[in-house]
Amino acid sequence: MIKQLTIFGVGLIGGSLAMALRQAGYCEQIVGCSRSAVHLQRAQDLGVIDRFSTDPAEAVKDADMVLLAVPMRAMRAVLESIKPALSESAIITDAGSTKVSVIREIEAVFGAEFDRFVAGHPIAGREKTGVEAALVDLFTSRRVILTPMAYTNPQAVESVRAMWQQTGAVVESMNPELHDQVLAGTSHLPHVLAFSFVDTLHQSPQSSDILRYAAGGFKDFSRIASSDPVMWRDICLTNSDAVVGMIEAMRDNLGQFADLIRAQDAEGLEEVMGRAKQVRDDYMARYDVR
Amino acid sequence: MIKQLTIFGVGLIGGSLAMALRQAGYCEQIVGCSRSAVHLQRAQDLGVIDRFSTDPAEAVKDADMVLLAVPMRAMRAVLESIKPALSESAIITDAGSTKVSVIREIEAVFGAEFDRFVAGHPIAGREKTGVEAALVDLFTSRRVILTPMAYTNPQAVESVRAMWQQTGAVVESMNPELHDQVLAGTSHLPHVLAFSFVDTLHQSPQSSDILRYAAGGFKDFSRIASSDPVMWRDICLTNSDAVVGMIEAMRDNLGQFADLIRAQDAEGLEEVMGRAKQVRDDYMARYDVR
Repeated sequence: MIKQLTIFGVGLIGGSLAMALRQAGYCEQIVGCSRSAVHLQRAQDLGVIDRFSTDPAEAVKDADMVLLAVPMRAMRAVLESIKPALSESAIITDAGSTKVSVIREIEAVFGAEFDRFVAGHPIAGREKTGVEAALVDLFTSRRVILTPMAYTNPQAVESVRAMWQQTGAVVESMNPELHDQVLAGTSHLPHVLAFSFVDTLHQSPQSSDILRYAAGGFKDFSRIASSDPVMWRDICLTNSDAVVGMIEAMRDNLGQFADLIRAQDAEGLEEVMGRAKQVRDDYMARYDVR
Repeated sequence: MIKQLTIFGVGLIGGSLAMALRQAGYCEQIVGCSRSAVHLQRAQDLGVIDRFSTDPAEAVKDADMVLLAVPMRAMRAVLESIKPALSESAIITDAGSTKVSVIREIEAVFGAEFDRFVAGHPIAGREKTGVEAALVDLFTSRRVILTPMAYTNPQAVESVRAMWQQTGAVVESMNPELHDQVLAGTSHLPHVLAFSFVDTLHQSPQSSDILRYAAGGFKDFSRIASSDPVMWRDICLTNSDAVVGMIEAMRDNLGQFADLIRAQDAEGLEEVMGRAKQVRDDYMARYDVR
């Protein structure tokens, strides 16, 4: 049980967590905080939070659990503003898409080996954003990855794990570097590819004809290019080494495809395409959960 | 009206056309031909075709319309086998995904400026293949692109157009070079990207973790990597110049993304991502039909 959960950024992720914990009766009080009183009032009117404050120090004063669900490049300012007011036992967690960078921010503000921060990443989302898009079952059967450090207080890890489990999520742990590598491959790279794919077509001499005749494949493939550019800009910039590494690996791989086609190497092309199909089909058979 | 339509390759595309034309009462007789009597018998049992032959000459003897719906690299052999038996007035059309290459095959077998061939491409498909996957409404509201040459008999073009219109398709015309450029961008490139994306993850040092934690984005993005490797191998090899051109443009564009991330250029990254989102959102508002 949580006495007071304070959520920074009551949007899709923060709002959905609040709704799920309220339904589970897991928090006595849920307090929202952000820079916009209008947004916070809306969240309160929707019954997502009990009350709110635009003053970070006031918002965290009695909190035993603090969730940071703000854009990653806003984390630093929030951390600095809550530090003086935070109680000695309060636990901080976050919902950001990259983990090494947020751990560095925590160390910069709270000092090395601060043991009551548990980095977390709920792997769930929608194309819509904002508290109006929040869903009580957004995390049901979804993965939440925690990336505690060796020095993190085990009780704090357990509290964050227990909180997410109340939402119906499957909670797993890994080290933050591996998390950032894995997400660079499965999430950040496909988003960069979708943005780059649409931009490539847009830049081509036949772009108006290409878009006019775009078939279903284009629609599916470009869907995630409709994602929020500010959010994805920040993800790329905070997980830059891993994302650049995946982009360069992809450029090399595409170069091999181009070489096979130029050489009219039917056997080689079928082999690599067939291998990819096999990997994808195996994935669907093994891991597809929802 | 068509007296006898002979279809080479009674699979998803050929079978769906036969079903739609039968429902419309547009053909007196539909004859199937391929190398497999078992497949053809199945198509006849399903009521997709009236009769069949595994002898191409026999199959086209009384045809006034011939559809080639075989893999592109099988076109040449079919054309050579039907040439001696084809009537003086029979029209040939095809359903291949690339158009310049099939026009070259026609010229090689029937001579330059053969005026009764109308190249065509129905932009419709499913992940399933074979006559069992055929649907009577596969082409409803879908585009069929015809790429006639200046020397093609206008009456032949009109006959092929009228046939496809019976299926509920929207029939359009463009020149074959533009068709191949447009499809290289909207269809062939995304398939190469999907195969290459899955292969890139598979080749990475963290591949087992990456696949284990792959989120929804991976599933959507890699879907078309489950397509038939033989079909896509042939499309890449027959439309090689345009496909290689698109791959190289994409590699350059990805290189620019990597440079922006390396330089931590937040403004530049947001600009290019925002532009791609705008292009995609405009496309959805303007062209999304189904």
